[in-house]
Amino acid sequence: MKKHIVLLPGDGIGPEVTKAAKRVLETTAEQFGHTFTFETQDIGGAAIDHQGTPLPEDTLAACRKADGIVLGAVGGPKWEHLPGHLRPEKGLLGIRKQLGLFANLRPIKGFPSLLHASPLKREVVEGSDLLIVRELTGGLYFGEPRERRNQNTEVVDTLTYTRAEIERIVDQAFQSAQLRRRHLTSVDKANVLESSRMWREIVEEKKHDYPDVEVEHMLVDAAAMKLITNPTYFDVLVTENMFGDILSDEASVLTGSLGMLPSASIREDGLGLYEPVHGSAPDIAGQDKANPLAAILSAAMMLRYSFQMSEEADEVEAAVHAVLQDKYHTADLKVAGGIQVSGSVLANKVS
Amino acid sequence: MKKHIVLLPGDGIGPEVTKAAKRVLETTAEQFGHTFTFETQDIGGAAIDHQGTPLPEDTLAACRKADGIVLGAVGGPKWEHLPGHLRPEKGLLGIRKQLGLFANLRPIKGFPSLLHASPLKREVVEGSDLLIVRELTGGLYFGEPRERRNQNTEVVDTLTYTRAEIERIVDQAFQSAQLRRRHLTSVDKANVLESSRMWREIVEEKKHDYPDVEVEHMLVDAAAMKLITNPTYFDVLVTENMFGDILSDEASVLTGSLGMLPSASIREDGLGLYEPVHGSAPDIAGQDKANPLAAILSAAMMLRYSFQMSEEADEVEAAVHAVLQDKYHTADLKVAGGIQVSGSVLANKVS
Ligand SMILES: CC(C)[C@H](C(=O)O)[C@@H](O)C(=O)O
Ligand SMILES: CC(C)[C@H](C(=O)O)[C@@H](O)C(=O)O
Repeated sequence: MKKHIVLLPGDGIGPEVTKAAKRVLETTAEQFGHTFTFETQDIGGAAIDHQGTPLPEDTLAACRKADGIVLGAVGGPKWEHLPGHLRPEKGLLGIRKQLGLFANLRPIKGFPSLLHASPLKREVVEGSDLLIVRELTGGLYFGEPRERRNQNTEVVDTLTYTRAEIERIVDQAFQSAQLRRRHLTSVDKANVLESSRMWREIVEEKKHDYPDVEVEHMLVDAAAMKLITNPTYFDVLVTENMFGDILSDEASVLTGSLGMLPSASIREDGLGLYEPVHGSAPDIAGQDKANPLAAILSAAMMLRYSFQMSEEADEVEAAVHAVLQDKYHTADLKVAGGIQVSGSVLANKVS
Repeated sequence: MKKHIVLLPGDGIGPEVTKAAKRVLETTAEQFGHTFTFETQDIGGAAIDHQGTPLPEDTLAACRKADGIVLGAVGGPKWEHLPGHLRPEKGLLGIRKQLGLFANLRPIKGFPSLLHASPLKREVVEGSDLLIVRELTGGLYFGEPRERRNQNTEVVDTLTYTRAEIERIVDQAFQSAQLRRRHLTSVDKANVLESSRMWREIVEEKKHDYPDVEVEHMLVDAAAMKLITNPTYFDVLVTENMFGDILSDEASVLTGSLGMLPSASIREDGLGLYEPVHGSAPDIAGQDKANPLAAILSAAMMLRYSFQMSEEADEVEAAVHAVLQDKYHTADLKVAGGIQVSGSVLANKVS
């Protein structure tokens, strides 16, 4: 198969981990007889530096024609003094919205050899394997009005959803649950928010289309507790944009492998943007210290979700597990008795 | 001193833990030569059953004249089928808003003898002692419009704050920090929300009035992570209503002593409503199994914050610590080699 991939290296350690992901994708193409073509575009701080805007038109145009997009990381102190519309993260928010990437998939699974780095007791976290499905293009992130009022004495943000926006993310979540353990937890704040009541109604309607999935509702505050006290309870968790931002970051530290976590932001036709959960880590950028495994696992998600290449994805994931089993790791992972190597050496071992 | 206290027992285990708190307050009055008078009023499900509304006028009128209010718990499956405006939690939201109880104070401190029940590793959680200051009467909880639109194809909720609302909670947080370790973390989502940008500006303005307090800003997603990976990092954390709901519940499970956590909801003139963080636990209601210590510690907060009786509060808190040290506990607390007793026996030991 032929696939065209846009690389958005971005800032900090973004370029080095994107390079590692590219390399693994090249190996996969060779091995399975595919043709992957690559194109690199600016985003975030790098785009501000080169083109004066965090999301250049060329970047957007290239992504619209791509089969898949791999992003490194955006942001850093260098751009923090800039006004809101010129901040690196505006590039990220913009590309999600412009491309309609409404479903953010964040799988969280503990790697046995890294569990000792978890803040949780082993008996609490062991065996946890969950998928957070976060709505990514609606809610408080994009609702209007969002403004100051009455001579700057009042401020307003708006949480809006259309029925169609809720339906498609709920469908996505039910379908994700069908491919896993068929247990779906829909998280809302229906005792306070009208949008949550509509969310809950839609889940209740949709559940008849997925009779094989067991679904329940949980309040966001209760979910924030249960993620910590009983992470193995969850299979798939679906929620709106802001709750998803908070809960997915909360969940990302549970297993002690933040440096290993991939994410996908996808839409109905399969186009997706794939990025590691970790940030741009400017303090270690350019030193070949960054852990490339989250970016590599993000590329594996692209193979699976955008290219329907599940065998290829399995292979990449197995290779990542194998290097960990062999105890190779970068400085961020503290593997007892392990062999610490540079990011590029680790990427080599995977590919 | 003479003080008039309104008791709002509410639902489930609410009545029994409120009774325990009352008993301890009576002992305190006797011991220190105060006169505490008590009056009991309906709220929540009990109020729905008796008077057809979760927040009767009489309850509100009594609370307006009180020096302090102790609430047990509200809610339970019995009332879950009722329409929104007739749900027990509407009583709680209503009383906060009607009385203007804008500052929710949630201290979280690990009890050494209970740390083994924490989901976190001892070395991570040990020594954590933080106070979450949550804005309680603004934001998404009360903003208008909150409605369905376009024949139920759209929904909107509104996050609003006035400058004055943000200023008073920020002042409260700085002042709380002055009484503690003088480190304040203001939590927002300034990279997305206009209300968070205004919040951040106000914190920046106010910090000049409190030069002895070190203040920093943290994004809500980062705070959700850091609470788990490094809870001892925090001293005072201040945030808006919805973020505060999520983060304070997240924080409440860190130390393994959810059954021990008190809370205060106060306003500028000192009137406050004091309630345990735990819920109404209908499954064990009426069996004298409920842990009364969170309600008792809530009463201690009332002594401290509404009655300026810090010596009396210290005494109650010391008594709670003493019974734990003596290894007396209710069934919810699993104290190794401890002596399990009923809720009323435990309350006796404190008073
Ligand atoms: C950078 C920021 C705007 C973004 C978000 O809040 O969505 C980030 O936290 C994320 O989760 O990808
Ligand atoms: C019952 C509910 C409306 C309430 C809230 O969200 O404020 C509760 O979760 C709390 O934190 O006191």
